[in-house]
Amino acid sequence: MKIDKFFTPKSVAVIGASREAGKIGNTILQNLISGGFAGEIYPVNPNAVEILGKKCYPNINSVAAETDLAVICVPAPVVLSAAKDVIKKKVGAVIVVSSGFKEIGNIAAEKKLAALFMKAKIPLIGPNCLGVFDAHTKVDTLFLPVARLERPNKGKISFISQSGALGSAMLDLASAAGLGFAKFVSYGNASGINENDLLEYLSKDNQTGVICFYVEGLADGKRFMKTVSKISKPIIVLKGGRSAEGKKAALSHTGSIAGESKIYSGAFKQAGAVEVDGLEEMFAAAHVFEKLSVKPRGRRVQIITNGGGHGIVSADAVAVNNLPFAVLSEKTTAVLKKELPSICSIANPLDIVGDATAERFLLSISACQSDKNVDALVVNLLPQTPTVDHEKIVQKLKQMNASKPIVLVITGGKYAVEVARKYENAGFPVFQYPEIAVKALAAYLKHNR
Amino acid sequence: MKIDKFFTPKSVAVIGASREAGKIGNTILQNLISGGFAGEIYPVNPNAVEILGKKCYPNINSVAAETDLAVICVPAPVVLSAAKDVIKKKVGAVIVVSSGFKEIGNIAAEKKLAALFMKAKIPLIGPNCLGVFDAHTKVDTLFLPVARLERPNKGKISFISQSGALGSAMLDLASAAGLGFAKFVSYGNASGINENDLLEYLSKDNQTGVICFYVEGLADGKRFMKTVSKISKPIIVLKGGRSAEGKKAALSHTGSIAGESKIYSGAFKQAGAVEVDGLEEMFAAAHVFEKLSVKPRGRRVQIITNGGGHGIVSADAVAVNNLPFAVLSEKTTAVLKKELPSICSIANPLDIVGDATAERFLLSISACQSDKNVDALVVNLLPQTPTVDHEKIVQKLKQMNASKPIVLVITGGKYAVEVARKYENAGFPVFQYPEIAVKALAAYLKHNR
Repeated sequence: MKIDKFFTPKSVAVIGASREAGKIGNTILQNLISGGFAGEIYPVNPNAVEILGKKCYPNINSVAAETDLAVICVPAPVVLSAAKDVIKKKVGAVIVVSSGFKEIGNIAAEKKLAALFMKAKIPLIGPNCLGVFDAHTKVDTLFLPVARLERPNKGKISFISQSGALGSAMLDLASAAGLGFAKFVSYGNASGINENDLLEYLSKDNQTGVICFYVEGLADGKRFMKTVSKISKPIIVLKGGRSAEGKKAALSHTGSIAGESKIYSGAFKQAGAVEVDGLEEMFAAAHVFEKLSVKPRGRRVQIITNGGGHGIVSADAVAVNNLPFAVLSEKTTAVLKKELPSICSIANPLDIVGDATAERFLLSISACQSDKNVDALVVNLLPQTPTVDHEKIVQKLKQMNASKPIVLVITGGKYAVEVARKYENAGFPVFQYPEIAVKALAAYLKHNR
Repeated sequence: MKIDKFFTPKSVAVIGASREAGKIGNTILQNLISGGFAGEIYPVNPNAVEILGKKCYPNINSVAAETDLAVICVPAPVVLSAAKDVIKKKVGAVIVVSSGFKEIGNIAAEKKLAALFMKAKIPLIGPNCLGVFDAHTKVDTLFLPVARLERPNKGKISFISQSGALGSAMLDLASAAGLGFAKFVSYGNASGINENDLLEYLSKDNQTGVICFYVEGLADGKRFMKTVSKISKPIIVLKGGRSAEGKKAALSHTGSIAGESKIYSGAFKQAGAVEVDGLEEMFAAAHVFEKLSVKPRGRRVQIITNGGGHGIVSADAVAVNNLPFAVLSEKTTAVLKKELPSICSIANPLDIVGDATAERFLLSISACQSDKNVDALVVNLLPQTPTVDHEKIVQKLKQMNASKPIVLVITGGKYAVEVARKYENAGFPVFQYPEIAVKALAAYLKHNR
């Protein structure tokens, strides 16, 4: 079933548009209007003539033009009747935001709803979901106000979440961190479109470079395995309900049978997905995939640092993540011995010590970039010392056109965050903690093996 | 040896004070003057009459008044002569910031230096260190400018770091996060005062509530064990050099024989210190100890959430950290069943669902606070929904005067950070990620067992 109308509709109807600020049907309309969606927007509400400056329609069938996407956000008891209207209208895709179905035991109504759309061959997302946010087309059916949930800029991360609240909180956090997104989908009860349909779609989506997936239970495990093993893009999975208590909670949350976490882990591994242990790890890995596109030839990591402690903590993290350590070639060692002050430690970590300058960093990075024994770099760039000219490093790094992945660690407060933003803008993923940077790099190197 | 003059001196002399902005001896003087240190400050430099508006002395012995603390930041070759001067002056304590000793193989000079101060019975911190920052007295010998390294407000965290750069980066990060500090010490080569002296001192220091410790190698393992096992305050240790490569790096960084990490881990455990795996974890744990003072009666954790996914991820984290789950009493269950909407899941996690209000949160927290089956609470408070009045929760939580530890999870961007700050200001530790919050709470519950 074609599902592109969810993401690239020319027109969106909001069935249940409301005049009252704070209501779901008002927030969705508001977000579409002010978020920059360029297509037509049709509010549908039999009791209004105009909402938020847009002409309002009593019924979707009174809209003369074709409608690509219908968002249904009326109360559960009238969803079926709204569904019949949008089927009559032959819309291209439907998102049912409304809750009050399977998740509260109302299984019959949900089955009926799904069957109607199935018969009409109209793809359905939901019910009981937030729906879609597309950072490129600005389709936005999330009923959370922008003041409380920032929308991210365009980028390569797509995120499918079985939990709407978790998904939206992470979307908000990622926006503030400056991570770029392609698509976000909260698919709720998955009565129509499920995670497999979405994964297949995203695997062919040009804007999506990495797929994050929060899942409690799979709709169809076999199909999932088949789908994921065919996808060459990185998929980062966080499985909710790995513990007995988490499993029980998943059952009452999304009605998911969470299954044995070991079986899931095995399946994720076999299918080539990267499983992570928590939310931070998921977005740290996505961060590296979002920024980097250079393909590593191996997994040997070289650490560079202007702080001994950070070098050591990075080395411990490289070991914990089972990554091999690079051993600098004789040639590189000779060059560095000649050019660097004798107090520097030319090894792995390569410690260019506390008074390191931009030149020392650039010399070291460049030497490692051209050393055939090195596959990837972790560069600890502590910004508290006044000796480093970051502007210079940023400019030269951009010109260097790195042929090997580089992740940066910049630990600190206000000034450090400003500095980090400069490197981020130049295309380098930056992390506060060495252990998180290395973990995220490990996911990148693992996928690109 | 009494070492309080490092932290509460009435006067500080800066031997090697410089007129040139950017020089170590200028930055230290500047930070003492503008940081709010209330005592006397004596710049010492034979070539200047006045520096930064302060009268300058050619030699410390030309200062007429007593001098409690001398900070020596002259180049290594003249440190010994400066040392003789301060010994003649009978200062109360000395910090030798200058590098160029043991860490570059200059062992003889360092031994001589240490012996001089030992004989004079003057306590020595350093050489090759940043020295001391005291958030209460504003003693500040860190030669890093405030524009690049923010100093934290007063609070309960003390941090001893064998690595100056790592220590200062984390101090900066913690400042930006709003964590309150008591004392920070970078003790460098530890020729005089070592980690054991500092731990003993901090264990008796009224301002210190929790001790963070970054260590690569111990000066005296037996004394460390004895010292730590006598300390009842929480000690959170990050051991650098747990891997073979990290160990090698530690040897060239601080000259530390890093030893077998398993032996260290065993010793930390036996001595009652909490060992952590990374920098983030260290400060997350410190954060909980800084905010909370209520003593838990056990370790049974109850999760509350307005987002199903966050509840599940929290539950998985509780299980991973081997914490027992609380089982709500029949009485609590009955109260919650009566008062909460039927869609809520009264279990562990207690899921008060997406449209939760302040009232629902307060009812749930209060019921768990008075349930004898609950020892601690993890409350996931996702702020993206407009239904929650945070001001109200903050006010009532303050009045509640919680008898059990509460940690909060507030995931999100700008608005979430604002909301989190309100709870922080009211005395509750807040985290972005449920897995980090639970890990930090685990350290708290483990220590207070």
